[in-house]
Amino acid sequence: MRKVAVIGVGMSRFGVRTDANLVELSFEAVKPALEDAGVEPKDIEYVPVGTVGFWYEEPLPAVVIAEYNGLTTKGLVRCEAACASGSSALLTGYTMIASGLADLCLVIGIEKMREIDTRMVMELIGRAGYYMWEFENFGMTFPAYYAMHATAHMAKYGTTEEDLAMVAVKNHKYGALNPYAHFQKAITLDEALSSPMIAWPLKLYDCCPISDGAAAVVLASEDKVKELGVDTPVWIAGVGYSSDTANLSKRVDYVGLRSSVIAARQAYKMAGVGPEDLDVATVHDCFTIAEIMAYEDIGLCKKGEGATLIREGQTEIGGKIPVNLDGGLKAKGHPIGATGVAMAVELVKQLRESAEKGRQAPMKNYIALAHNVGGTGHYCYVTIFRR
Amino acid sequence: MRKVAVIGVGMSRFGVRTDANLVELSFEAVKPALEDAGVEPKDIEYVPVGTVGFWYEEPLPAVVIAEYNGLTTKGLVRCEAACASGSSALLTGYTMIASGLADLCLVIGIEKMREIDTRMVMELIGRAGYYMWEFENFGMTFPAYYAMHATAHMAKYGTTEEDLAMVAVKNHKYGALNPYAHFQKAITLDEALSSPMIAWPLKLYDCCPISDGAAAVVLASEDKVKELGVDTPVWIAGVGYSSDTANLSKRVDYVGLRSSVIAARQAYKMAGVGPEDLDVATVHDCFTIAEIMAYEDIGLCKKGEGATLIREGQTEIGGKIPVNLDGGLKAKGHPIGATGVAMAVELVKQLRESAEKGRQAPMKNYIALAHNVGGTGHYCYVTIFRR
Repeated sequence: MRKVAVIGVGMSRFGVRTDANLVELSFEAVKPALEDAGVEPKDIEYVPVGTVGFWYEEPLPAVVIAEYNGLTTKGLVRCEAACASGSSALLTGYTMIASGLADLCLVIGIEKMREIDTRMVMELIGRAGYYMWEFENFGMTFPAYYAMHATAHMAKYGTTEEDLAMVAVKNHKYGALNPYAHFQKAITLDEALSSPMIAWPLKLYDCCPISDGAAAVVLASEDKVKELGVDTPVWIAGVGYSSDTANLSKRVDYVGLRSSVIAARQAYKMAGVGPEDLDVATVHDCFTIAEIMAYEDIGLCKKGEGATLIREGQTEIGGKIPVNLDGGLKAKGHPIGATGVAMAVELVKQLRESAEKGRQAPMKNYIALAHNVGGTGHYCYVTIFRR
Repeated sequence: MRKVAVIGVGMSRFGVRTDANLVELSFEAVKPALEDAGVEPKDIEYVPVGTVGFWYEEPLPAVVIAEYNGLTTKGLVRCEAACASGSSALLTGYTMIASGLADLCLVIGIEKMREIDTRMVMELIGRAGYYMWEFENFGMTFPAYYAMHATAHMAKYGTTEEDLAMVAVKNHKYGALNPYAHFQKAITLDEALSSPMIAWPLKLYDCCPISDGAAAVVLASEDKVKELGVDTPVWIAGVGYSSDTANLSKRVDYVGLRSSVIAARQAYKMAGVGPEDLDVATVHDCFTIAEIMAYEDIGLCKKGEGATLIREGQTEIGGKIPVNLDGGLKAKGHPIGATGVAMAVELVKQLRESAEKGRQAPMKNYIALAHNVGGTGHYCYVTIFRR
């Protein structure tokens, strides 16, 4: 299998981006990514675009995005894996190069979710459960699904509302230092705990926002890395992918996500590393409970000990394994198709030791992991990067 | 690059399939494909699903399709490249195996377009042009776009309404012999020419129908082909992909599709063959003029000579290069996400010399080509198969 490196990264500011349309938003990510890689649109061979795209009227987003960025005539595909769409696009670009079909791919992740009313977004996302049963009959929406996970975790392992709030406090602390984050402000534990109830035990600050945003990475073969004389290529060392039933009534338990466990195991095996080798990670904290479950599912601690990690500060800088130093979905924002690609952008910055002041993880092995979930574990993609 | 073979194929009957829901329809393709390959769902590693999915309420089709077919926990992604979505899924499965990441992939193409009113389908497809300009301002729909191509081709090369009608007559002739086709009846030239006008010069019989349908293929690595003792693997010898502007006012001309030319050239180069080596082909005849342009764009004849091929019967059995012996999009039907995968199903049957009576191409080199367009050349994927 040919080696594949990330050689350029870029992202737009995440947030309420009614100031830019879909293609303008993509340009904010693509331009810096190409410049960072030192390549031009004409050099690119294939462009996987991760986006779900419920929210806007444009039916072929990949086509208009490619056109606006000077990529017309290049191979194109739109990849959808719900909130893991960005990572599925990254995998598609990866295999295009690993197989030998291409030497340079541009992977774009993008979503513009603030085009429509928040209640409509909630309904559309809610449908991602088992539509005909859970959504239509019980009116389940995403905060409700994750609230079920939270109550199960609290009942079985004694996780508390304070533990959940501490995840929000940590991620807002780092989001405040990230100029691309949707929320660039720190919050206190009191603020988190006293924020409006959404679906018990999840409060407003336990939920990620609905965001617009774009991210892009340039992937290159080893030959191309040499040809371009890239200084600090960041190699994709391992990938993993799994899925699970859309019918949550069929899940075995609610204290974790089976697809995360399977995808992480695959990625570690391929990379030949374990959780203890990681210097930094991004995990899919669409809700605070999701970050705690992710700690356990990807092996940063034993099952049931996720809350201990956050209580002890082990996932902050200075702790055992810093997590979501970009603010995570919680504070950086979650434009769903962009998220997986934005995780790659963040980890490349971390591995290059070029993250903004106050949010750079100390590097020992120069190994990082991205964990990206679609739905409530309907999809999971895990990617391990190594400098 | 590792070699990749198609080792199993299956498809549902195409047509108005209100008798089956989305997942049931997928099962009609997946079950025979797995049986043909002699593998079980548990053996599959990754499942790319080609579907556009405007038409139904299920937001994560890949997840529910995987679940219904016993593929939960497998890697999943939905691939969209408009009417070439099936081919983009095929390429994704191909690179997963060619790269060495997987040994067995199941590629599914599916669309259920008869869920909603025909006028709504026309509007949704019409938006695939440049939405904000051509669709909103001029009310362009797909027959109108292809009518522009037809008039340009008629003006420049003297192609006639009779030539277009002859494509319909040929494809209906073969569709009548295909038990999976939407329209299993032959038509006369008179019937085609006297059918209701849709967008001059395109009449009802110049247009493919709006169909429901599913198709599936199992892809395997060379190691897996040996391990399973597959009798007649059909190898993917070449792939090509390109895109073009969504803004038709920016196209250089209307007598062909640039993306078809580029994608075909790539695929021939990779396979080390030329158009003269093909025994059979499927081309994207969403409208009759599209088949004539495809003849030229993929090099079956010189530019401007497409009409001569159909007039002389060169694309029928007994001619130089038989095309669309399954009935094509015109008669077999065009459930858009399924089409690219259904082309693979058809060509594998042809290369195995197992097509139904009266529609088997004579084999000399055992090489076949599939040409699949998205939009009006917004996307193009070409795949070359070799037994």
